[in-house]
Amino acid sequence: MQGRGKFITLEGGEGSGKTTMIGRIGSYFEKRGIPYVVTREPGGIEIAEKIRSIILDPLHTAMDARTEALLYAAARSQHLAEKVEPALEAGKTVICDRFVDSSLAYQGYARGLGIENVWAINRFAIGDLMPDMTLYLDIEPEQGLGRIEAHDGREVNRLDLENLEFHRKVREAYFLLQKQFPERIQVIDASQTPDEVEKAMILSLEAGILKDFDE
Amino acid sequence: MQGRGKFITLEGGEGSGKTTMIGRIGSYFEKRGIPYVVTREPGGIEIAEKIRSIILDPLHTAMDARTEALLYAAARSQHLAEKVEPALEAGKTVICDRFVDSSLAYQGYARGLGIENVWAINRFAIGDLMPDMTLYLDIEPEQGLGRIEAHDGREVNRLDLENLEFHRKVREAYFLLQKQFPERIQVIDASQTPDEVEKAMILSLEAGILKDFDE
Repeated sequence: MQGRGKFITLEGGEGSGKTTMIGRIGSYFEKRGIPYVVTREPGGIEIAEKIRSIILDPLHTAMDARTEALLYAAARSQHLAEKVEPALEAGKTVICDRFVDSSLAYQGYARGLGIENVWAINRFAIGDLMPDMTLYLDIEPEQGLGRIEAHDGREVNRLDLENLEFHRKVREAYFLLQKQFPERIQVIDASQTPDEVEKAMILSLEAGILKDFDE
Repeated sequence: MQGRGKFITLEGGEGSGKTTMIGRIGSYFEKRGIPYVVTREPGGIEIAEKIRSIILDPLHTAMDARTEALLYAAARSQHLAEKVEPALEAGKTVICDRFVDSSLAYQGYARGLGIENVWAINRFAIGDLMPDMTLYLDIEPEQGLGRIEAHDGREVNRLDLENLEFHRKVREAYFLLQKQFPERIQVIDASQTPDEVEKAMILSLEAGILKDFDE
């Protein structure tokens, strides 16, 4: 067997089925007998949790957009140092729900801080620890929101619709990032059925990083 | 009178007399009738104070050096947005006790994260808001520690002496920064008497930014 584990990240907008698909990837690794860990920032890391609670405190309406981006990067750096890096070193594959591409797409592009600027602080936060593979579950924002309505029973409200333009920009950003990192970022058509999405993900994983696991 | 205020930062190691000298600059501005504000990070800004309390929590021994640097940058960004920028816009001169050069010298150089790397996240944190002038109160670490012993009555301990090498690196860093920003950073010989140091600071301020205040 290999020494160091692989680092896989999942990205995707609302209604893309990201949570379900992380579960399915986990089951697949289970079946293959590959040791793995599923995580997401802040990942139960105390310092990172405290940083997140500052970001999410509703009283902090005066929080500067740059401060927020720096806090996300700080929580990321701590989560990597305390959880992701030790797991990879122990030979476990790490599957992380959202990572640096989320910051680049949401804060860098859609919120207008600039992809290059947000990339600069994240490069500092993550050092050399880029994902070996990133699966981007792509879905049109309208369809994603429709799924939330249909499956979660939550009514899509005025705010969701106003946010449509925002989610379109986020999607645009992921395509820009895919052009920048064509090897690493695999676009998965998430408009398909769950079984089809799973199949597409496994194919990408097997063609990419999982080939290292074969005898 | 002018519109926007000037942004002045003070830097200096232990025993350089920074606190005393900030008071004297304040008195000088008072006499000149120039509206000013004295501040230091986190400057009573709630979000920044909370960020600092995460950094300084003695239980956080596992804090990654990068996380710490990002948190300092985040607190800085919020302090600028909420306090420094509004004061400058209101036409007040802001005198800030330590700023970006401290991060570059202590974390970037002496702690080994790299001046360029720490500069990248701080450039993001401060945007275009660089100081108009920085006064670096320079003193040899041995003399600075000696002053602490003589004036504060605090005994210089083994740890202080072990830290001597560290403080020498910090001083080295300030000289490197001064070469990089020769216009902005003025080195003040802080080994002189307080009156002499004050005179040197005022001369630098008058030759630099204060000339704009003259009729």
